[in-house]
Amino acid sequence: MGIIVQKFGGSSVATLEKLEKVSEHIIEEINKKNQVVVVVSAQGKTTDRLIAEEKEVTKKVYPREHDVLVSVGEQITIAKLAMLLKSKNYNAVSLCGWQIPILTDSNYTNSRIRYIHNETINEYLRTGNIVIVAGFQGIDENGNITTFGRGGSDTTAVALAASLDAERCDIFTDVDGVYSADPRIVDTVKKIKTISYEEMLELSSMGAKVLHNRCVEIGKKYNIPIYVKSTFERKSLGTLVTNKESFLEDLTINGVTKDDYISRITIVGLENKIGKTYQLFKLLSENSINVDIIVQSFGEHITKDIAFTVKMNDLARTLEILEENKEKLSAKEILHSENLSKVSIIGVGIANKPGVAASMFEALYENNINMHMVTTSEIKISVLVDVNDSDLAVKAIHQKFFETENY
Amino acid sequence: MGIIVQKFGGSSVATLEKLEKVSEHIIEEINKKNQVVVVVSAQGKTTDRLIAEEKEVTKKVYPREHDVLVSVGEQITIAKLAMLLKSKNYNAVSLCGWQIPILTDSNYTNSRIRYIHNETINEYLRTGNIVIVAGFQGIDENGNITTFGRGGSDTTAVALAASLDAERCDIFTDVDGVYSADPRIVDTVKKIKTISYEEMLELSSMGAKVLHNRCVEIGKKYNIPIYVKSTFERKSLGTLVTNKESFLEDLTINGVTKDDYISRITIVGLENKIGKTYQLFKLLSENSINVDIIVQSFGEHITKDIAFTVKMNDLARTLEILEENKEKLSAKEILHSENLSKVSIIGVGIANKPGVAASMFEALYENNINMHMVTTSEIKISVLVDVNDSDLAVKAIHQKFFETENY
Repeated sequence: MGIIVQKFGGSSVATLEKLEKVSEHIIEEINKKNQVVVVVSAQGKTTDRLIAEEKEVTKKVYPREHDVLVSVGEQITIAKLAMLLKSKNYNAVSLCGWQIPILTDSNYTNSRIRYIHNETINEYLRTGNIVIVAGFQGIDENGNITTFGRGGSDTTAVALAASLDAERCDIFTDVDGVYSADPRIVDTVKKIKTISYEEMLELSSMGAKVLHNRCVEIGKKYNIPIYVKSTFERKSLGTLVTNKESFLEDLTINGVTKDDYISRITIVGLENKIGKTYQLFKLLSENSINVDIIVQSFGEHITKDIAFTVKMNDLARTLEILEENKEKLSAKEILHSENLSKVSIIGVGIANKPGVAASMFEALYENNINMHMVTTSEIKISVLVDVNDSDLAVKAIHQKFFETENY
Repeated sequence: MGIIVQKFGGSSVATLEKLEKVSEHIIEEINKKNQVVVVVSAQGKTTDRLIAEEKEVTKKVYPREHDVLVSVGEQITIAKLAMLLKSKNYNAVSLCGWQIPILTDSNYTNSRIRYIHNETINEYLRTGNIVIVAGFQGIDENGNITTFGRGGSDTTAVALAASLDAERCDIFTDVDGVYSADPRIVDTVKKIKTISYEEMLELSSMGAKVLHNRCVEIGKKYNIPIYVKSTFERKSLGTLVTNKESFLEDLTINGVTKDDYISRITIVGLENKIGKTYQLFKLLSENSINVDIIVQSFGEHITKDIAFTVKMNDLARTLEILEENKEKLSAKEILHSENLSKVSIIGVGIANKPGVAASMFEALYENNINMHMVTTSEIKISVLVDVNDSDLAVKAIHQKFFETENY
């Protein structure tokens, strides 16, 4: 008897038939005498459709109004799911982000949760209700609607689990867990039974679309066990994301992943003066541009070159901002390469096993794949390759680590 | 320089092209240095579509969740209109009912406004914003979303005009004013330039779909001039609804209207005892059934017959409730007729002009139209006819009053 938070993504709630499946998962927990809080996304392609309609009105994004518009997707789902459960004679109640309320900062389209008031939910649970919560949305201190960006329903779910002191958070999706690579690229993938928050974070930020990054961060901070499960394949056990790294000690790497749509920007001849690098990245952060890999190399004696990657859809704006501030940064030249892909391997203790990087590079070399950039951390190694090489790179690396006996 | 409230209905905001027209009306008032509050409905058939989706989930209506679902329609419109105005470099901000907040009772699907907090809107106006408000929706004291029933955006608009002490409220629609009859039935209709609140109330409740009843009531109570105008025909002056009855003294009747989908229920042999009639209508009111015409005739010495009309879609439920309580009401028999239509004429002082009723009945008699029931009030006369006769009845009556010289 405890609180279980279940989250169902857009593809799990896309149709009425699928909502029926969702209700079965909920009722299963109710039958086990658990209290259930359900977080849902917008149905199917609803959010995409709303954004397409928005683009017809204006090419420019007006963030506050954008959030007012797209937040209706989840509101539709909560109402329907609550109705469905009520029609099956279960007490259910829907709540929008502002009704809970889930307080966030005012960073529209990509806001972060500041505080969740759990009194309303707890009262509904106490009086025997299944509580259906709209994912992805909150309210700022001035009463404006905010949204968390794509995948934000995962964040809602794990944050609620933390706030409600839930036993666990189940993330239901259309895949049945986290895999060692993308099954669409590598056909010999292995499902991971248990993975640490840290590894999952790397997998998430590396382009594995299974879990939203911030949700894993919150899970880690509040130590919430997160199960990634299939909505439709009931037999599958899924993947447990937890803090128990010991499970993994026998494995060297846990997964191979790729992130296409990467572009690299190189700033040539940045003045080699204290504060210039800081100035550069502060400028980008103020404009909400997420910089990923950063490599700094010294050029001529009074200047340095800095290369970093941004997502393809941030490229145009990043270049614009840099050109505007070229003089202020005293940069000589701003270059960029598009159509790159970041291929990474993830695994606890990679840093302590020198053979791992070598094996990765060997797999790429054997397949004639050019590496444009390399970065490493405690638990991952990433290389930048041409996007045309990325599938081959994932396959080759996966084979090297998972399918050969001699590693 | 004052506050103008403009309301645009579903057909006025149905497409992007139409939203462009809407923005022109708004900008016109801004250019006159007015402060503008805009109330909009859901786009085109959005609400119908949502209700169709709801019916796929469950045949039974769960009122709280119904309101959560259908209120998204207006939320989509406010976001789009605010974006459109911002893209034209006007400051605009959208507000949902709960953000204002518009406080209502908890009578989901048909709630009434209790109080409008005007501080948020006034602050946005003060700082130079066009305020775009979602019509048809509010919030109850427990933070639940409520809606006002069909046509409720009119109510939002006039109630806001009252709360903000606006100069006037413009109701933009796809017709260019209030007519003496439905132009689809009578092709010689005359547009009414000015009409009193009372007459408009009768026209509204009689099935003229131009203005929502409650909005006229609020207009009357707070003396808000209401203009009914066309969104698309800019030359037309529209109809002014006001308290100035003097304009109308030269006219005998102001309009002919009909309301199809009426059914009549007759309770035969109700015990002729004090309180029985009260008991009957209290029972129906408790079940939220709106009773319209009531005619009571004494039958045998210890019983009486009562006939009354309800809307067709309330008929089944009304009969069910009456059958359940037949014994308690000590009624002998419950009869009903379907497929009736109420045809009415509206005009100040009808009661004082005996020729009016006679002319109306004469028009029906000349066309062989049978009257099933008659009621009169200070400013209207209604007759119940077969629904198949209703168009002919409206035409005949209209001709009698508006097109013949000798009246």
